[in-house]
Amino acid sequence: MTNQIKNIIIIGTGNVATHLAKALSGAGLNIAQVYGRNIKDAREIAGDVNCNYTSDISTIYSGADLYILAVTETAVKEILEKLPKHNKLIVHTSGSLHIDILKAYSKNFGVLYPLQTFSKKDVINFSDIPFCIEANSQENLESLIKLAKSISDDVRKVNSEERKLIHLAAVFACNFPNFLYTIAEDILNKEGIRFDILLPLIKKTTEKIYTLSPGDVQTGPAQRKDQETIRKHMALLENMPEYEEIYKLLSDAIINKHH
Amino acid sequence: MTNQIKNIIIIGTGNVATHLAKALSGAGLNIAQVYGRNIKDAREIAGDVNCNYTSDISTIYSGADLYILAVTETAVKEILEKLPKHNKLIVHTSGSLHIDILKAYSKNFGVLYPLQTFSKKDVINFSDIPFCIEANSQENLESLIKLAKSISDDVRKVNSEERKLIHLAAVFACNFPNFLYTIAEDILNKEGIRFDILLPLIKKTTEKIYTLSPGDVQTGPAQRKDQETIRKHMALLENMPEYEEIYKLLSDAIINKHH
Repeated sequence: MTNQIKNIIIIGTGNVATHLAKALSGAGLNIAQVYGRNIKDAREIAGDVNCNYTSDISTIYSGADLYILAVTETAVKEILEKLPKHNKLIVHTSGSLHIDILKAYSKNFGVLYPLQTFSKKDVINFSDIPFCIEANSQENLESLIKLAKSISDDVRKVNSEERKLIHLAAVFACNFPNFLYTIAEDILNKEGIRFDILLPLIKKTTEKIYTLSPGDVQTGPAQRKDQETIRKHMALLENMPEYEEIYKLLSDAIINKHH
Repeated sequence: MTNQIKNIIIIGTGNVATHLAKALSGAGLNIAQVYGRNIKDAREIAGDVNCNYTSDISTIYSGADLYILAVTETAVKEILEKLPKHNKLIVHTSGSLHIDILKAYSKNFGVLYPLQTFSKKDVINFSDIPFCIEANSQENLESLIKLAKSISDDVRKVNSEERKLIHLAAVFACNFPNFLYTIAEDILNKEGIRFDILLPLIKKTTEKIYTLSPGDVQTGPAQRKDQETIRKHMALLENMPEYEEIYKLLSDAIINKHH
């Protein structure tokens, strides 16, 4: 029998907590309470989803159907030690933490990992966000899948080992490219050129991989093994040694992969 | 007085040559001839734009208004040495070559650099592609701007020094991110997970920077200085030493930038 999740406690006030609380509330679920170390942050989310809030961990309600631990990886352990124990369903939302970190806390536990990058002020459409679900039992798995399906069209059963790799791949596909955009902006700003000249190029680069494998659409000096251009580019970076090192390492890796 | 460009010779048969020939032809300009070392490639483009073609450099027509040298950086010099000299307007399409490489060839010369990544089979909409224009004289500059405006809404006057930096920034914004997507795909494929799970994340990452600076929307373990997750990720990459090195260098650079 699947237990229907109706009442939810959100533990955490960061970007994931904020967006998840709003989405679940918008789907008709009842957010009963928000806990945050900082009362002001908890109040802000509580205001958005019309619920109670607390900054005292001992006053977290005990009667909810689901406790969502949406805090940074490093804070999860610390919070678990302080959280009043019971046997309600508890999940974390982390890409890299094993499900078993929750074992000591409750008989019913799982993972609800939304594969997306969340910024606080951003508008998030959850419907196309992949949700990676894992649970300690078939019953809890089904409850969590049902919950995730109320906000997303892409809900997948993913174990802890797979999820770790997905999280690692996401760092390469999101965090690192964004940092390379930052480098590009730094390079352009030195000459007073606005970053937006690159936007059509960035858009096309990501459009291609909707239909083709990124390995098949690699372009650029390193893909052509054009050592003269690579040398000129590195000379341009001589006053930015960290960026020069990144240029060299990535170019060498592209040459190794494609030649 | 601006000379109206009507008849164009395309020198080269690569991705830029192919797409540029089609776009200019589509805008009503006359492609008079296509030259390619490989007759089959030249014939293919000629078929698309309904023009003559040749693989014999000495038979390139002398009476056109514009000669577009759309070949790889490394081939430009070699072709220029063989090309029959005259004083018609000639341009190259390269991001990294100085305009003056054309000086010895003609009194009228310039650069027409479309800032985009071109794959042969791709459908390209030129209207939002930034065109970086440079010329040896005001008159030639105006002719080239007018020509570029016939296919693009974003035409800019850019000198050789600026263009070099734009090309370098484009490598960081396009070629390197695409390679990081390739790494992400490699990581996922090891566990049989399909790459498309990352597409909504990649889409959101690039959408953000349409309105915000990439430096302001950096997320991920390195941005949080979450050394435990970084260590776990590097352990997952121990059998992929090149990817591990890239992970470390980029994470260190993000930490340096944000802490």
